[in-house]
Amino acid sequence: MKRIRIDLQYDGTDFAGWQSQPGGNTVQDLLEEHLRAVLSVPDLRVSAQGRTDAGVHALRQVVHFDCDTLIPPKKLPRLLNKRLLQHGVVVLDAKQVKETFHARFSASSRTYCYVLCRSEAPPPVYLLRYCHHITHRFNASLVSEAIREFVGEHDFAAFCSSDWEGDTTVRSIIEASVLIEGPWIRLVFKANAFLHNMVRHIVGLLLQIAKEKQSKELISTLLDGPNPTSKSRRPWSLPPAKGLFLVDVEYPDEA
Amino acid sequence: MKRIRIDLQYDGTDFAGWQSQPGGNTVQDLLEEHLRAVLSVPDLRVSAQGRTDAGVHALRQVVHFDCDTLIPPKKLPRLLNKRLLQHGVVVLDAKQVKETFHARFSASSRTYCYVLCRSEAPPPVYLLRYCHHITHRFNASLVSEAIREFVGEHDFAAFCSSDWEGDTTVRSIIEASVLIEGPWIRLVFKANAFLHNMVRHIVGLLLQIAKEKQSKELISTLLDGPNPTSKSRRPWSLPPAKGLFLVDVEYPDEA
Repeated sequence: MKRIRIDLQYDGTDFAGWQSQPGGNTVQDLLEEHLRAVLSVPDLRVSAQGRTDAGVHALRQVVHFDCDTLIPPKKLPRLLNKRLLQHGVVVLDAKQVKETFHARFSASSRTYCYVLCRSEAPPPVYLLRYCHHITHRFNASLVSEAIREFVGEHDFAAFCSSDWEGDTTVRSIIEASVLIEGPWIRLVFKANAFLHNMVRHIVGLLLQIAKEKQSKELISTLLDGPNPTSKSRRPWSLPPAKGLFLVDVEYPDEA
Repeated sequence: MKRIRIDLQYDGTDFAGWQSQPGGNTVQDLLEEHLRAVLSVPDLRVSAQGRTDAGVHALRQVVHFDCDTLIPPKKLPRLLNKRLLQHGVVVLDAKQVKETFHARFSASSRTYCYVLCRSEAPPPVYLLRYCHHITHRFNASLVSEAIREFVGEHDFAAFCSSDWEGDTTVRSIIEASVLIEGPWIRLVFKANAFLHNMVRHIVGLLLQIAKEKQSKELISTLLDGPNPTSKSRRPWSLPPAKGLFLVDVEYPDEA
């Protein structure tokens, strides 16, 4: 048995998210379908570093699987891309890894980026699918100050969807920054791991701070506080999935 | 009656082209449907500068229509974009114009761009829909020389789809150039007007020249020659629509 790691990108727009589900139309379902066909392994399943929600894009998602194939892994990108590019999925790389490698458990951190376009006019048509267009005020210095409050180890229960069924809601944000170039604003977060909807909840609050409708003091009140029992208790709304990118997954061996 | 001009962009990927047709799913159908709703004019039709084929994108398509509405044209972009952005259509501008303005007949020229990505690996996932990926040789100096052969007034019958039903196949190419930045190659053509599939046929031949499978001498043989009676007689294939953009439409008054 070889353990094979695949790195891939996808345009999340037309998918119901990463993770396989009965209704289908997920990136995992599509990838597994074509891996099974290419490798002739009918029951092949992959393990990913983590899920992404419906509409969220990935510039680097990482998965692994075990397989007995004689096809050299380096041939997989070309074989798979012939089938996947038309669906908005790009296989970047495939290689054999140690059998101790695990896409999820070996990862030391993940990086997400939320892309905003702040302008009166809509973004160019070819970027519509890949950003959240805002026309309101964006006080960049307030946001730059506020985003730093999230860095460090905190209980992020207040920034997690209320359907969370995991154990702890404590996570460590390693880096958080705001990058601005003309109308483009990128909010970048690197953490050991993320809770469900965590980046979008944080961005939702940062947008309220950008509009000067909330002050950054709210962050310290919420961090290490409880998960709200109903959505309506949050003084922000969840910004759309289309602005969110899983940018990278970091593994200690690669450093 | 006011004559109103609308400038718009669209992502052609999921449309069956610009022009209204019985099967629907065209940009014109969608724009007219929402213009009728917004302006409460049930029989409104628009006239465009020209058609684009299924899958072809537009960075600036221009249309006009006549209407009695009291809604100021400058409010139309916001009203329409609320409905159209989700379909990959962006209204850039709307304004009242002289009643002598005609989107098609007043235009002095059109500019198209064909976008290639030449690289071993596929383009980034967010640009997959907007370029034609090639991995083969691209001899840039041969293409730069060859593209100049097309400039001037010629009979482009050999570069027109065989279903052409218009009268003359003579057109004037005003400018034609190759722009290269890293893996990105843009082939830009400005002409008084274009025949059906003319840009894609020219690009098809230029790609054969780029691969050194045809020499530029073939161009002078074909220009001012007849329309081939069957597709198979052409020593190139039509490159995919997704690489093609209608970039601009020029009107003499704007100079």
